[in-house]
Parts: sequence; C-alpha cells; structure tokens
Amino acid sequence: MDSIKAMIRNIPDFPKPGIQFKDITPVLSDPEAFHYLIETFAEFAKKQQVTAILAPESRGFMLGSALAFHLDVKFIPARKAGKLPFKTFQVEYKLEYGTAVLEMHQDALVPTDRVLIIDDLIATAGTIHACIELVQCAKAQVAGIASLISLSEFKDHQNFNDVPYLNLIEI
Amino acid sequence: MDSIKAMIRNIPDFPKPGIQFKDITPVLSDPEAFHYLIETFAEFAKKQQVTAILAPESRGFMLGSALAFHLDVKFIPARKAGKLPFKTFQVEYKLEYGTAVLEMHQDALVPTDRVLIIDDLIATAGTIHACIELVQCAKAQVAGIASLISLSEFKDHQNFNDVPYLNLIEI
Repeated sequence: MDSIKAMIRNIPDFPKPGIQFKDITPVLSDPEAFHYLIETFAEFAKKQQVTAILAPESRGFMLGSALAFHLDVKFIPARKAGKLPFKTFQVEYKLEYGTAVLEMHQDALVPTDRVLIIDDLIATAGTIHACIELVQCAKAQVAGIASLISLSEFKDHQNFNDVPYLNLIEI
Repeated sequence: MDSIKAMIRNIPDFPKPGIQFKDITPVLSDPEAFHYLIETFAEFAKKQQVTAILAPESRGFMLGSALAFHLDVKFIPARKAGKLPFKTFQVEYKLEYGTAVLEMHQDALVPTDRVLIIDDLIATAGTIHACIELVQCAKAQVAGIASLISLSEFKDHQNFNDVPYLNLIEI
C-alpha cells in the first residue's frame, strides 16, 4: 500500500487556502494500483456479505462502480440535492460552513440488503454518516464502510460504532 | 438489450419542464444488467485496442470506472470547471443556453494512448465533442465512443467522422 500512498498527489490550497487536497486520479490511471485497491475492498466486502454498494457523489462513484461490478452486487449512487430524478430519501448534514443534503432513490434498496458505503476520503465523516442515515431510511443494513484515505487529524470523527470499517491509507 | 431498455425510467419534466429525463439507476442496481452492459462495451473497446477510458462527470463515471477496471486500462475523469486540482486542459462547449467548460488533467494521457470516451446518454453530443478535444489536447488518439442511450431526435449531432461509435439503446 506504500507505493499507492506515494501516488496520491498533495495539492496545497485547493479548493481554497489552507486545504491540502488529496488527488487520487494518478491511482485511478494506474491499472495495477486500481486493481489492487478494488480487490482489497472486495475481499473486505465479501466478508461482510454485502449485496449493494452505496457511493456518494462523485469521487465515490469512481471506486464504487468498479467494486459493485467486481462483486456482482447493486451499485447505488448517493447524490447532492436535486440530481436524482425519482422519489428520494433526503438527509441533511453539516459541512464546515452551513449544511448540505444527500439523496438516495427510495426504491434503491430493500430491507434485506447489506450495504457497503464507499468513498475516496474520510475526514469529518459527514458524508458517510449521511449515507448511513440513507440506508436506515430504506430499512436496510449498513454492513461495512470503506475508504481509500482517511485524514488522521479528524480521527475522533471516524467512529462508526459496530460497523466494520476498512481504510487503506492514513494521511 | 430490450429488457435493459425496459428498465430505463422516463421521468417527465426533469430537471425542467419539457425534458424527458432517462433514469439509468435501475440498470446500475441490477447486477446482471450492469454486467451485460459493461461486457458489451468491453468487447467493443478491445476491438479498438483502447488503453484508457475517459468518462465525463458524473454519470459517465458510473460506467467508466467499471469498464476501465474490467479492461485493465487507465480510468480518466473529465470534470466540470474547477473540480480537478492539478494542471488541466480546458475545453469550452455549448449548452442549450450558454456554455460550460470541461477539464482533464494534463498528465492523464500520453500520446500513445488510445482512448475510449464513454457517457450514459448522448443527445446533442456537446460533452462528447468536448472530450474529443481534450484527448486531442493531450495528443492522444480517440479510438472509440460509447454510450448506453442515444436520443434519436438529435441524430444529426451524433456524428464522429471516422471514430467507431457504439450506442446500445436508441430512444
């Protein structure tokens, strides 16, 4: 995993001053690295017997689509307000300044689904907690949480109780 | 392909009055349908000997990530202005009203790359033409274009000269 960590590009002051953006695009454009990641996530997901991948907009899609394909399970997008066209569940969550809304189609999951939530990076975990709530709205079960990168400065926020959590790279 | 066509949900007046939105999420949440699509795209991509998949934000990511993984080639996102953090090529293109900008990282492709551009839906093909220009900025070659849905009312716009084009469902 160290060689993959070395591919992640640090972009200072993006998208605004003081933020150190973690650019994962070099990993996605390296087929060997991308395969290794998806296979590592898949091994974890199989242990949790997941039936669906829920991925938040939009870097989550880049990992979640390949993972769902590889596992042969449902791919479900969670999107920002107003993007999903059918009836949705909606969860409001906190951002650094203000709030945002995340949505999931109401018919995306059934109560027997065991859902893995995946995103590229977890900091304060606001998006992940919103995804957990969306799964609960559908009365399905969160079977696991996975991320490529977690920011150690926000470690206190990365607490998902009894839900198994796999993070690959801590920065 | 008829059974997949039947899964695509028509949402009238979304995102605005007069638009018939084609909702592909039921296809993505059906593992058998999703596999069939990706394998069909992969067969086409192999014939064109592609080395990279370029997918525009953000429904393109949902197909492009799985396809790149399955083919074991680079996954490259094309994103709206200001989303990609590193040095980018930028192409302005026309929307129904006004213009938009699509970007790709400058180091995403090399001149020997043979690129497949994939999106969920092609109407006026403005996004696809912007993607073609981005590939040309990197001096790489567009080896193919693929879409799940094309809208027949815009057929005149879906002309890519000598570039092989695979569309699966015409509506």
